[in-house]
Amino acid sequence: MAQPLLTLTTDFGLSDHYVGVMKGVILGICPRAQIVDISHQVKPFEIAEAAYLIAQAYRQFPRKTVHIVVVDPGVGTARRPILMEAAGQYFVAPDNGALAMVYAREKSKIRLISDDKYFRQPVSATFHGRDIFAPVAAHIAAGAPPSRMGRLIEDYLRPGFEKPQRTGKRTWSGRILNIDRFGNVVTNFHASDFPNLERQNFSLIFGPHQVSVLARNYAQCGPGELFAIVGSSGYLEVSVNQGSAAKQIGCESGAVVEMTVG
Amino acid sequence: MAQPLLTLTTDFGLSDHYVGVMKGVILGICPRAQIVDISHQVKPFEIAEAAYLIAQAYRQFPRKTVHIVVVDPGVGTARRPILMEAAGQYFVAPDNGALAMVYAREKSKIRLISDDKYFRQPVSATFHGRDIFAPVAAHIAAGAPPSRMGRLIEDYLRPGFEKPQRTGKRTWSGRILNIDRFGNVVTNFHASDFPNLERQNFSLIFGPHQVSVLARNYAQCGPGELFAIVGSSGYLEVSVNQGSAAKQIGCESGAVVEMTVG
Amino acid sequence: MAQPLLTLTTDFGLSDHYVGVMKGVILGICPRAQIVDISHQVKPFEIAEAAYLIAQAYRQFPRKTVHIVVVDPGVGTARRPILMEAAGQYFVAPDNGALAMVYAREKSKIRLISDDKYFRQPVSATFHGRDIFAPVAAHIAAGAPPSRMGRLIEDYLRPGFEKPQRTGKRTWSGRILNIDRFGNVVTNFHASDFPNLERQNFSLIFGPHQVSVLARNYAQCGPGELFAIVGSSGYLEVSVNQGSAAKQIGCESGAVVEMTVG
Repeated sequence: MAQPLLTLTTDFGLSDHYVGVMKGVILGICPRAQIVDISHQVKPFEIAEAAYLIAQAYRQFPRKTVHIVVVDPGVGTARRPILMEAAGQYFVAPDNGALAMVYAREKSKIRLISDDKYFRQPVSATFHGRDIFAPVAAHIAAGAPPSRMGRLIEDYLRPGFEKPQRTGKRTWSGRILNIDRFGNVVTNFHASDFPNLERQNFSLIFGPHQVSVLARNYAQCGPGELFAIVGSSGYLEVSVNQGSAAKQIGCESGAVVEMTVG
Repeated sequence: MAQPLLTLTTDFGLSDHYVGVMKGVILGICPRAQIVDISHQVKPFEIAEAAYLIAQAYRQFPRKTVHIVVVDPGVGTARRPILMEAAGQYFVAPDNGALAMVYAREKSKIRLISDDKYFRQPVSATFHGRDIFAPVAAHIAAGAPPSRMGRLIEDYLRPGFEKPQRTGKRTWSGRILNIDRFGNVVTNFHASDFPNLERQNFSLIFGPHQVSVLARNYAQCGPGELFAIVGSSGYLEVSVNQGSAAKQIGCESGAVVEMTVG
Repeated sequence: MAQPLLTLTTDFGLSDHYVGVMKGVILGICPRAQIVDISHQVKPFEIAEAAYLIAQAYRQFPRKTVHIVVVDPGVGTARRPILMEAAGQYFVAPDNGALAMVYAREKSKIRLISDDKYFRQPVSATFHGRDIFAPVAAHIAAGAPPSRMGRLIEDYLRPGFEKPQRTGKRTWSGRILNIDRFGNVVTNFHASDFPNLERQNFSLIFGPHQVSVLARNYAQCGPGELFAIVGSSGYLEVSVNQGSAAKQIGCESGAVVEMTVG
């Protein structure tokens, strides 16, 4: 029998004991669990960054994986904890948009987590990762039926931070979804929405910087030359061979990108 | 049968191979072990920080967990390795105070680790994490009786870095135990020692900064307003809504905090 | 039965989803796998650093461990993926020298990985860690015979970055293999090649800095005094008691070190 598998995506960093504590709680409830870190380096309180990371990661995990996403500026307030079933997997998170890039693309069922019998008691006002999300996820991983956690809801948050807007016949306005460790600039233009790009004129425009070359690999262009490439998640990225495109452009996650095609 | 569970708390960082090597040694001895990282980002040689982290973490782990704590400026000298049994769990560390915040609050039995049959040979002068602490912990996790490791001792180090001192009828002198990734300032004033604080006048004083508001969650106060809150470990912390209290106060771990109550 | 064991050494960092995604792919193929991180903080594209880290780590792992090393500036180009058997263990990496410090010292068999039935499809141009190295390693860990992956080759890359050169009767020219988190400066002079060093005059020379003391532990010398010590991997390292030798010397990984002996 396969081991129950859980993942963690948080803004807790790796210096403090918070991540270790969540794992202790999980393994106390579900001793055979495997736990995989997606990232704990989400910028503090940056829900959109967590939303991006979990949306890029979940498809690579087997069915029944339980994903925990805790970037939670509203911890201790009335914001609600939710449990989502989507793509044959489970997701627990605060209802603040952290799962929005998953439910924007998958058929999903979302429940309000309300049965405090599955919580660690007493529930603190500052660390629901330990007191609610970790224990609920561990119980799901150990086989508790999702329906026990609470009722289905429809009024969960739906932030609009994924899709580019068409602004003209040949122009779109998008944004930078992420800048990775290598300085690759990930836009929210998905290759599947712009087929045959390699046979058209196109430009990605970041203020004064314009990128019109579509490369097939990182080594195709010369040193210092910005190029676009279809990244491993299918989004158009802007890169430089063995350098940081983000530094060269001087851009940040969340910034606007214009695209012209054709 | 549950998998043997071990945790690691070190100042080894995550760039070098040291942590991976300790895990290799553990899994060579105890192949079914689960290993959880508490932190490897302890500031080099900062024993008090390691003592704080493991003391906040251990209670969330199941019985029989084996905790390895290696912040070890005296590696290779006459400082002694110890094995502690406390709270139904095991702890291995150098005898330098790294376990002091655990044995200050738990009934404990502490042994000098001396049977080198459980060591990796040859024992280096620079990496007892690999050569002594990891293999001894792995043997304990695999079922070796603690009494085999060495005799009970009473003369282990007892640094006094946990408790605040009363300095007057209404005043105490404490210190900053830790500053976390979010800039929350954790003091060594524990809520259980100051009951009914929410119904009294009190102030936490950091040089020119005075904090007199006790909040119930992070969102209760306005932007930029410092407040005290009972943190997830029960200590009084000073925070700012979605900001860094440590930056605003300009304070560091280890610094003095005064408190007046009543 | 022992769990299949894999390790990861990459330059992917811990902020992005890349490492988590590789683990998801591995666990989808080999659900009982244990995965240990050696490091993901290799400086981007620094093959020599990855080569050093895996070479220091692998001997501490049990037989049949599968090591994945992905520092891969040539991803998507004609550079080849390889599978090595050495020391009773398996290694997968791009053929760019990342395994060179292992095959320089071990009897090895190296294969070109070519059977794309073991790849994740479609294979992207930018993330072979996910699409080739993780799935091939997971299939090996799950019991697939190495010979299925591809034919033996002899023309793999052999960069010469490990051994010091003799430059005179009493002089050698070496280099700095690594600088660790503590600022210890690891040279490529191995203690086993310079026996009885403690009974001879010797100097390690870094520009204007000369180190002629061989210490037996970190606490033996006074504050601020540079000394040499045989490190945990057998290489001569230069250290300072509770300080950073690298900062004091002002040196970097890859720099030249001269040694005189006798």
